[in-house]
Amino acid sequence: MAEGDRVNRRVGRLSKTRMEAFSDGVIAIAITLLVLDLAVRPPGSPWEQLRQAWPSLLAYVVSFLTIGAAWIAHNALTDLLDRADVLFLRLNLVFLLFVAFLPFPTRLVADGLYEHETEAERVAVVVYGLTLLAIRLSFFVLESYTRREHLLIADADDADLRDERKKFVYVAIGYLITIVLGIVVPLAAVVIYFALAIFLVVPFRALGEVFSGQQPD
Amino acid sequence: MAEGDRVNRRVGRLSKTRMEAFSDGVIAIAITLLVLDLAVRPPGSPWEQLRQAWPSLLAYVVSFLTIGAAWIAHNALTDLLDRADVLFLRLNLVFLLFVAFLPFPTRLVADGLYEHETEAERVAVVVYGLTLLAIRLSFFVLESYTRREHLLIADADDADLRDERKKFVYVAIGYLITIVLGIVVPLAAVVIYFALAIFLVVPFRALGEVFSGQQPD
Amino acid sequence: MAEGDRVNRRVGRLSKTRMEAFSDGVIAIAITLLVLDLAVRPPGSPWEQLRQAWPSLLAYVVSFLTIGAAWIAHNALTDLLDRADVLFLRLNLVFLLFVAFLPFPTRLVADGLYEHETEAERVAVVVYGLTLLAIRLSFFVLESYTRREHLLIADADDADLRDERKKFVYVAIGYLITIVLGIVVPLAAVVIYFALAIFLVVPFRALGEVFSGQQPD
Amino acid sequence: MAEGDRVNRRVGRLSKTRMEAFSDGVIAIAITLLVLDLAVRPPGSPWEQLRQAWPSLLAYVVSFLTIGAAWIAHNALTDLLDRADVLFLRLNLVFLLFVAFLPFPTRLVADGLYEHETEAERVAVVVYGLTLLAIRLSFFVLESYTRREHLLIADADDADLRDERKKFVYVAIGYLITIVLGIVVPLAAVVIYFALAIFLVVPFRALGEVFSGQQPD
Repeated sequence: MAEGDRVNRRVGRLSKTRMEAFSDGVIAIAITLLVLDLAVRPPGSPWEQLRQAWPSLLAYVVSFLTIGAAWIAHNALTDLLDRADVLFLRLNLVFLLFVAFLPFPTRLVADGLYEHETEAERVAVVVYGLTLLAIRLSFFVLESYTRREHLLIADADDADLRDERKKFVYVAIGYLITIVLGIVVPLAAVVIYFALAIFLVVPFRALGEVFSGQQPD
Repeated sequence: MAEGDRVNRRVGRLSKTRMEAFSDGVIAIAITLLVLDLAVRPPGSPWEQLRQAWPSLLAYVVSFLTIGAAWIAHNALTDLLDRADVLFLRLNLVFLLFVAFLPFPTRLVADGLYEHETEAERVAVVVYGLTLLAIRLSFFVLESYTRREHLLIADADDADLRDERKKFVYVAIGYLITIVLGIVVPLAAVVIYFALAIFLVVPFRALGEVFSGQQPD
Repeated sequence: MAEGDRVNRRVGRLSKTRMEAFSDGVIAIAITLLVLDLAVRPPGSPWEQLRQAWPSLLAYVVSFLTIGAAWIAHNALTDLLDRADVLFLRLNLVFLLFVAFLPFPTRLVADGLYEHETEAERVAVVVYGLTLLAIRLSFFVLESYTRREHLLIADADDADLRDERKKFVYVAIGYLITIVLGIVVPLAAVVIYFALAIFLVVPFRALGEVFSGQQPD
Repeated sequence: MAEGDRVNRRVGRLSKTRMEAFSDGVIAIAITLLVLDLAVRPPGSPWEQLRQAWPSLLAYVVSFLTIGAAWIAHNALTDLLDRADVLFLRLNLVFLLFVAFLPFPTRLVADGLYEHETEAERVAVVVYGLTLLAIRLSFFVLESYTRREHLLIADADDADLRDERKKFVYVAIGYLITIVLGIVVPLAAVVIYFALAIFLVVPFRALGEVFSGQQPD
């Protein structure tokens, strides 16, 4: 940062800027790499091939929204962050590891659904669900750490982060149930992952305020 | 941001910085990933293979310019943005979803034209056109939302954004007509997509000013 | 940028920040995507396969250094930029188009050299050289435009940019000769591209100063 | 940077901002591209295929942590950087070249272990180790250069950077021994690379402080 001279040179502060830039980079790349696994495959007429590609399109949208929701939550957290410390950077790295990993199970799900092979769908859906759960859990650890070590701005409060915390327990339990369900009915699990991604991304309160004519915060 | 101390800590404000960084990341990655689908394929001598790769080169340039134009429009909008809010971040995510999706139909178009198979060209050209339309529409929604919720800087005005609004209706109608045309004559549709991308990217007014000796703004 | 309140809200200024971020993104992605085309291929023992992969390793290093040099030059230019305007953003987009395109001819060169097929090498080496030339030329246009429109900081001067201008004519002529040479002796052309990349990246004057005990600027 | 007016326009200063952004970009992309090489392969039931994919998962985690540690070290260095100069940008480019190269040997290791072919494992493990060593060495050169040329902030001190220096000798010797060991027992080498990555990433001192109830710095 060019304004280094004017700024308190606490390492934590400066680290925050680059930690955000690096995290934005990793999350943006993971979300954009998803497109590489979209494909139409023979046999069938071109329209049929496209129609049969719906599992990869569905998996694309679910993963895109899930990573998008993870970015929004991460953004809300670092907005309130007063400083990052040595351990925060490592915990953040673990969170990014799971986010960057998601394109792999996404591909498994798309392939499993495409091949209509129940055993492959089962494996895919469980690995996918465990990754989604790992993303939420590692974020939860990250957020708890910032509270425990008082890294947040005093009196910090944020609509997105508050919603995030409220949603966490529901979503974590939802993922656990869906993983078990996925062993029995894999396709149903994918539909629920989709519903949970929508639930994570949609800001119900803010939406209510907009429709009731109030200004969202 | 290291200058957190001096700055009004409204969440909306800080979100804007990272929203821009994240959007830049996604758009930059989508535009650069296009190169991965460029390929020469046997049979034929090396020169012939390269010559026969023109559809993928054309699709590359059209998509590059379209995403480039989307970035310029997004840039113009966020320049005038006073603050981002909870809903803006989600609408922005939808816009990014369509931008990040474009490499997939680009590949379809390149493959369709390469294989000289009319049915595949038709599918490709329609999906491509719908994606281009979705990019414009989601940006239109994003921009309308910022006006409706007064998120822009008061008296904000920007040459690029003004041009953008003027061009929107023409371009949206152009895409719709071209999608229909693409069902009949796929190749013609690709040529028109190219023309529309040029139309979106070229700043006619600023160019006129440069050639008439004035300073563009 | 959170400091929007204190800052003159000239569009050109704010555009500069995001123009740099977007350009950094595209260049960083293009330079990193090069690794995806590195591969060892049968037949042969593992050591032989690795040894036979030298063309892709050479092409990797040449392209990495060339894109790296393009980034350094772009960095030097935007450091001195007072403001970006509507046309600058478009010319910058053309420059980025050629940079983002480089992984494709890099793959052609690696494949051509690997297959020991002179005709394929010839095509690859010419397309590669034309892309390298297009990167330099589009940067030259970009830089000339900033001078013509007085977009640079008054009295701006920069060691890197000065070197860049001096090197430009030599490098452009070098590329032209090498492209012609490449039609006759493809491998020699790759070696010269490598030499030119080194020439572009190595800061001879600064290096001289370091070895003579002075402080480089 | 929009705050250009208030800032001393020394080239070195401004370069630092973009040098960080570019480095963040390259490192973030390299770390995220690793996921593209994760794959399950027939034959076998889906669960068996996933189980047999453990070498690519292990290689993924080792490379992710190694690049993550390189980012943390780079971050610690540039936090203390007062200014970048012409040579620093080039040395930084060499460091980034090795970081961006890592996905290639990672793929070699994953393929070698998957195929249970000792000769391929041997080659892979040696190339991988040499790349890990090159990343550390190029960072060591970069850091030494900043000290030699007094580019760091006066009295600069940073916990991460201090740990980094202490760890460097152990890690470099560790890599050298492991490369030799890898020629004899390839799999053991991968396990040690994993241990070294953990050693690099875990902040033992800070962890000790947290568990002993002190505030880490």
